[in-house]
Amino acid sequence: MDATLSTSFAGRLDEIAAETDALLDRLLSDKAAAGEIARPARLIEAMRYAALSGGKRLRPFLLVETAALFGVPREPALMAGAALECVHGYSLVHDDLPAMDNDALRRGQPTVHKAFDEATAILVGDGLLTFAFDLMSRVETHPDSNVRIALVSELARAAGLGGMVGGQLLDLASEGRFGGARKQTEADIVKLQAMKTGALLRFACRAGAILGGADAAALAAIDRFGAAAGTAFQIADDLLDVEGDTETIGKQTGKDAAAGKATLVAALGIDGARARLAQMLAGAESALAVFGAKADMLRAAARFIAERRS
Amino acid sequence: MDATLSTSFAGRLDEIAAETDALLDRLLSDKAAAGEIARPARLIEAMRYAALSGGKRLRPFLLVETAALFGVPREPALMAGAALECVHGYSLVHDDLPAMDNDALRRGQPTVHKAFDEATAILVGDGLLTFAFDLMSRVETHPDSNVRIALVSELARAAGLGGMVGGQLLDLASEGRFGGARKQTEADIVKLQAMKTGALLRFACRAGAILGGADAAALAAIDRFGAAAGTAFQIADDLLDVEGDTETIGKQTGKDAAAGKATLVAALGIDGARARLAQMLAGAESALAVFGAKADMLRAAARFIAERRS
Repeated sequence: MDATLSTSFAGRLDEIAAETDALLDRLLSDKAAAGEIARPARLIEAMRYAALSGGKRLRPFLLVETAALFGVPREPALMAGAALECVHGYSLVHDDLPAMDNDALRRGQPTVHKAFDEATAILVGDGLLTFAFDLMSRVETHPDSNVRIALVSELARAAGLGGMVGGQLLDLASEGRFGGARKQTEADIVKLQAMKTGALLRFACRAGAILGGADAAALAAIDRFGAAAGTAFQIADDLLDVEGDTETIGKQTGKDAAAGKATLVAALGIDGARARLAQMLAGAESALAVFGAKADMLRAAARFIAERRS
Repeated sequence: MDATLSTSFAGRLDEIAAETDALLDRLLSDKAAAGEIARPARLIEAMRYAALSGGKRLRPFLLVETAALFGVPREPALMAGAALECVHGYSLVHDDLPAMDNDALRRGQPTVHKAFDEATAILVGDGLLTFAFDLMSRVETHPDSNVRIALVSELARAAGLGGMVGGQLLDLASEGRFGGARKQTEADIVKLQAMKTGALLRFACRAGAILGGADAAALAAIDRFGAAAGTAFQIADDLLDVEGDTETIGKQTGKDAAAGKATLVAALGIDGARARLAQMLAGAESALAVFGAKADMLRAAARFIAERRS
């Protein structure tokens, strides 16, 4: 990776993460918004614990940087990014529940049901998911309601039964949780991962383009980029589970193999998965060709996704 | 209650319930919509189990009948009603979970986590909540995106941390689930119930008026009606828990007292709660005065809510 670009990318990633945190900090206050009755102290405390726990904010970054490609100012893009991060955050809280992946650690900290309790964690997830649609529908996200409703609709499709939620169910099924055959084909795994993690990363990119009023060709290019980056993210995640250590990545490693999870590392081997990752990275970069040097930040993001160590 | 109107109301309630069921049956198919990757068979099966289990569809009824007051045709109102019913359905699935109310029966049938499993039930709730925003954002709900985004925003506020989800947390807190004092004042209980069940019923009425382009005065009158009807609903529910029997209402009774739940029956006594219920019913009817005979169906709905035996 080019050193100058890398520094610039790392700085920008931190900057957008800090701005996303500041925005979520402001939005998740204990003051009721118009149309709300009251925000219970314990719920807000737990939602803040979940949402302000120092993630990389990769989804907001992809959204903001894609939006910037189309001339969208930072503030509305950050609002859409905050909405997206609420969806991502809710999915982690629910995934960590005892009945789901039963994880005690997340980013090196106790998961919400450990720090609070299980009922609170369920409600934190429900609250964050609902709040995402509140944020996405706000006029601060975009002045044109046609744009906002398109974002709401795409977010619901990416995050719902035919996207992230469906992917989570397929993931549990692949562990044999619901009985039946456990053997997953490569195609099964690709579909599962496109739903479970790919859909939301892809939406992050699409949302930036939609906010920016991208034409059909540009949106299609961004869509190819987002799909490739999303696939790369999951392969890198699966490789980290095999090769990383718990301390560096802040959650337990080696869990996939122990749970018999269907991953591309299991299906293709480590070298095969690395080759697929390189292929996805090339695909992501080729999709950006049409945007020239303006897309350098997204190129750096794709390399970061593929090469990250945590 | 006037016998002719009662018959007519019961018929209309059944009719709208049947139309809501038919619409949800069509929408919750295994065919992926645009932007979705695939709808996993087990998830769709469990979402259908949760959403097509024969509820009264009171929220869609209030929405459709309020919309009719403003000349909105049945079909778009039913789409918004189906979205609302997905939110209601998700809340029941999550409320029934072992870590929440731990209920084995719902409408006389095994709850979703009993019929399937706990992980599936969590995902069914997440999927239904997300799907609600998909449906609300569809052009079939209203051709004007300003109207659709207003519905999305109000639904998120009514259902989220400052509404239903927050009310659910306060309800668990009132049982002493999170430690601390259990004694609830009457004002605490009124707030809790306005959030937990009132907000969504009130939204049902408001949504009908918003769909119909009601002016500010008409929306305010409908809001008063919805708030009174919502309060009446919860008082009637609490009275049923004391006076009803499990067979008639299809879920276990006597649980509130056993759990030490904060209800107005506990705070005011049975007679006091009945008096409050009558007061709410009068308030609901007075709010409708401005609409004349056109609002007879909503008047009948308020009486049904107050007088229902199951």
